[in-house]
Amino acid sequence: MKICVIGCGAVGGIFAAHLGRLPDVEVYAYDVAADHVRAINDAGLRLSGAEEFTAPIRATTDPAEIPRCDYGIVATKSIHTEAAIAAAARVFDRASAVCSVQNGAGNEEIIARYVRYVIRGTTFPAGHLIEPGHVGYDIQGDTWIGPFEPTATPMQLLRELAVTLSRSGMNTIALEDARGAQWTKLIFNAATNPVGALTGLDHGSATRFPPTGELFDALIDEGCAVAQALGIRLDQDPRVLVEKGARAPGRHRASMLQDVLARRQTEVDFMNGAIVQWGENVGVPTPLNRAMWALIKGLEESWKQK
Amino acid sequence: MKICVIGCGAVGGIFAAHLGRLPDVEVYAYDVAADHVRAINDAGLRLSGAEEFTAPIRATTDPAEIPRCDYGIVATKSIHTEAAIAAAARVFDRASAVCSVQNGAGNEEIIARYVRYVIRGTTFPAGHLIEPGHVGYDIQGDTWIGPFEPTATPMQLLRELAVTLSRSGMNTIALEDARGAQWTKLIFNAATNPVGALTGLDHGSATRFPPTGELFDALIDEGCAVAQALGIRLDQDPRVLVEKGARAPGRHRASMLQDVLARRQTEVDFMNGAIVQWGENVGVPTPLNRAMWALIKGLEESWKQK
Repeated sequence: MKICVIGCGAVGGIFAAHLGRLPDVEVYAYDVAADHVRAINDAGLRLSGAEEFTAPIRATTDPAEIPRCDYGIVATKSIHTEAAIAAAARVFDRASAVCSVQNGAGNEEIIARYVRYVIRGTTFPAGHLIEPGHVGYDIQGDTWIGPFEPTATPMQLLRELAVTLSRSGMNTIALEDARGAQWTKLIFNAATNPVGALTGLDHGSATRFPPTGELFDALIDEGCAVAQALGIRLDQDPRVLVEKGARAPGRHRASMLQDVLARRQTEVDFMNGAIVQWGENVGVPTPLNRAMWALIKGLEESWKQK
Repeated sequence: MKICVIGCGAVGGIFAAHLGRLPDVEVYAYDVAADHVRAINDAGLRLSGAEEFTAPIRATTDPAEIPRCDYGIVATKSIHTEAAIAAAARVFDRASAVCSVQNGAGNEEIIARYVRYVIRGTTFPAGHLIEPGHVGYDIQGDTWIGPFEPTATPMQLLRELAVTLSRSGMNTIALEDARGAQWTKLIFNAATNPVGALTGLDHGSATRFPPTGELFDALIDEGCAVAQALGIRLDQDPRVLVEKGARAPGRHRASMLQDVLARRQTEVDFMNGAIVQWGENVGVPTPLNRAMWALIKGLEESWKQK
């Protein structure tokens, strides 16, 4: 089996390294960071943190160097989905299936413009890039996948991918309907990411500080109302994820806070922006998610002026 | 006539310098910044910008050096009102009247714990401290004063203060009910200050950028609903102040953005916090003002951690 990981940063790197240990799987990593690609090809992809190992991976900045693959795993930031899948689509054919493990909502819709079978994925493992070729594996967790409804991806493909990922050490559950898992994480992210990014508070501090902890609650209430109107049954109350994250050791900075500190465009359009958009579609007001979206867009706008 | 200006920063400095030019008024400035006090006593208080002049003022860090005054003008940041009036109260007697020209709501209540007659004031001039002894006079405008209702300050005192301020070049209007002017500015400030502080956008940019401009509108709607429930007739639509500010030349940074950049505690409790509190008192929901309050409190909290 051949698998192409598209975007081999923190989350993509965790997937690629695990898959790279399976003797019956060839892993190809497509990434735009030339120094990262060079380091991976020179010395393998190193993970440290929750697990410590180095896996031999073939990495490239040029999808033309990758053979036809059975599966794709897209792990770029949402704002780069379009460019990444446009470049990498040539790697897949009518029998391949491509799975998003990205944050937010709206990535599957983009991928489906380029490949036949798309898989809706939600993953909880998290990490950060330590240096080129070296990913910090901060948080372990499960991955949930299901068909992206409009592409009617066969369950047989989903089950094969889930078994392969689980064998590699990334426990993955294949579901007929994975929207509940995705929306649970979406609502969690749309509450915790902008508040972390705007205040500079790490996740645990923002959860425990009453004003921001109550703002998490209010944002989650709006997201749950939209999910309910869409007929999506959440996996669990997103507050459980908030509490679980707050109990984790160390000071975890939300990915959007990491983006803001590095002055990188954030994923807010795919988080709060997606909740606002879906809320409009089903007539559920989301003034607080809209406010978070507006503040993050304003912050990004301010960077253009300096 | 003797007038004590309490807090001789940007706004206090503009008042003190103007009053200092009147031959029949003795002006005393109480400020906690020793270098600023020294510079004022050495070379006078210098204004530049909208007007250029230097006025001879007596300044001190010790209220015991100030004789009994007829009027007080409190121009500290709201978070310093309590400490400042507690120290300076000895300057006033049962015939004196003390006027707040501060931002936000809630300052008069604090001042009234220390002096008999309190005046509710709202002022539009703005500036910034350039260096000790030197204030930049950025924006000219009127001042509106009225009795602080619980102290029943006689209109005769208000009129005398208004005439004196107007003669000095600070046009001041005495009103029977000055709550409309104060709430107009309060609602304007509670919209523009946190959004500027959280995004880093100057006032004009935040007004013109559609996401933040629409957030201004939504915040103003909440504030207007609270004012209406309180029976306060606003002087004008706070959006007029937003538009007027956006047309001003240069890039004006909201005072809360200046505070955040300097990592100074902000006045958010007296702005969005006051609107939330009054909203609770009259049963008007203010979720967006509460969210802005929570984010600014979270931002202040994050400074304690670094």
